[in-house]
Amino acid sequence: MHFISERRLDDGVLEREFTLGEVPGILWTPPASAPVPLILMGHPGGLDKMRPRLTARARHSAKDGFAAATIELPGSGERPRSAAAEQARADLQAAVRAGGPVDDEIVDRLVLPLVDKAVPEWQATLDALLALPEIGGPVGFSGGVTAIGVRLAAVEPRVAAAVLFAGSFVPRVLFEEARQVTIPLHVLLQWDDEGNDRQAALELFDAFGSKEKTLHANMGGHTGVPQFAGDAAAAFFIRHLS
Amino acid sequence: MHFISERRLDDGVLEREFTLGEVPGILWTPPASAPVPLILMGHPGGLDKMRPRLTARARHSAKDGFAAATIELPGSGERPRSAAAEQARADLQAAVRAGGPVDDEIVDRLVLPLVDKAVPEWQATLDALLALPEIGGPVGFSGGVTAIGVRLAAVEPRVAAAVLFAGSFVPRVLFEEARQVTIPLHVLLQWDDEGNDRQAALELFDAFGSKEKTLHANMGGHTGVPQFAGDAAAAFFIRHLS
Repeated sequence: MHFISERRLDDGVLEREFTLGEVPGILWTPPASAPVPLILMGHPGGLDKMRPRLTARARHSAKDGFAAATIELPGSGERPRSAAAEQARADLQAAVRAGGPVDDEIVDRLVLPLVDKAVPEWQATLDALLALPEIGGPVGFSGGVTAIGVRLAAVEPRVAAAVLFAGSFVPRVLFEEARQVTIPLHVLLQWDDEGNDRQAALELFDAFGSKEKTLHANMGGHTGVPQFAGDAAAAFFIRHLS
Repeated sequence: MHFISERRLDDGVLEREFTLGEVPGILWTPPASAPVPLILMGHPGGLDKMRPRLTARARHSAKDGFAAATIELPGSGERPRSAAAEQARADLQAAVRAGGPVDDEIVDRLVLPLVDKAVPEWQATLDALLALPEIGGPVGFSGGVTAIGVRLAAVEPRVAAAVLFAGSFVPRVLFEEARQVTIPLHVLLQWDDEGNDRQAALELFDAFGSKEKTLHANMGGHTGVPQFAGDAAAAFFIRHLS
């Protein structure tokens, strides 16, 4: 892990850009004298575009005493494109525009290679971050591409709790992996999100093997997660990581 | 409204039993120098049996600065039984024991007369409570028989926010009334409650006309609502009544 920039925000949070091999990322740490817990922040891909929202989330987490970090997704931002992934994305967008349901085959073709590539990158990032003296644990995962969160929660024992968006475009094979998840989960669902298959989201929630799992469904469309729902997710992490 | 007993609890909460006509009830008020908001606390019927839990809920609400009150349901506790309601209750219990779905006709026969009788009693209680100098407003309604909460939220403009359990045995006609509800709602669902029809609960949540409605689904069976879910419901009332 190489740090390539560093700046101190006005609330005392230290923001550092890094690269880990070919993968760019950002780490935010609160002013603290002892090692702090860490939240890995997912996103849909495209760090530059997502950066204002990610920075706001990280500063909120810092207030609760947590470091936060994120990395670019394979095939997004400045990272090299894959022809197969670009084709699958185009096929999915065409299916959505046509207004019909999206074939499982397209979802699998787009999402499974992404999950296969991204999850080891998040794990390598975790190796590097936990080696820093200022990062202790436990570790939470929050948001982003649901399928990545499901796989990571299933296979990475260092992730102790997760906040997931119950989104569409989760390959069916990941519903099986969801049954292997046992960590506490806080699942957000935008009830009237037209781009989301509500029934599939409820089935995914049902599939998780966790003894403690909570579904918070709210109104407001895809990007309309209300402030109080964000507060509830923060309270979930305080309960499990502090 | 006649107060028939009064005692001061060790946290300073004043607990008073009252009668309003033939209906017994209990009012808990926090130590306060100004009029406070009020939470009407629903329950499944049988005040004596429910009293420890209701008292605990009321003391929690008092810490947040709210008065709390409840009344006995028609046909429960010391109140006169109705032969028709007793027959309907026996029919429902027999259907549940037989393991099959419960006919809508039985649910309607049991619940609709209960709602028709109980809701005006809650409204009369509200008249009397809001006439007390120590009670101001706004008013919330919390829990108990779901169908009573739906009707009350639909018809009583003084109820500003409600916490409802998405339970079974809600007559279909009340799904229509749910569409008339516009106040903020916080709906609790026990996801793996065997005595509850999950699909019907989700349909009821969907039916509510409120622009702000939140569903919190948790594990743990019918009586296993986790502590953090109670805390979230309390935060909802603080947001809307304080």
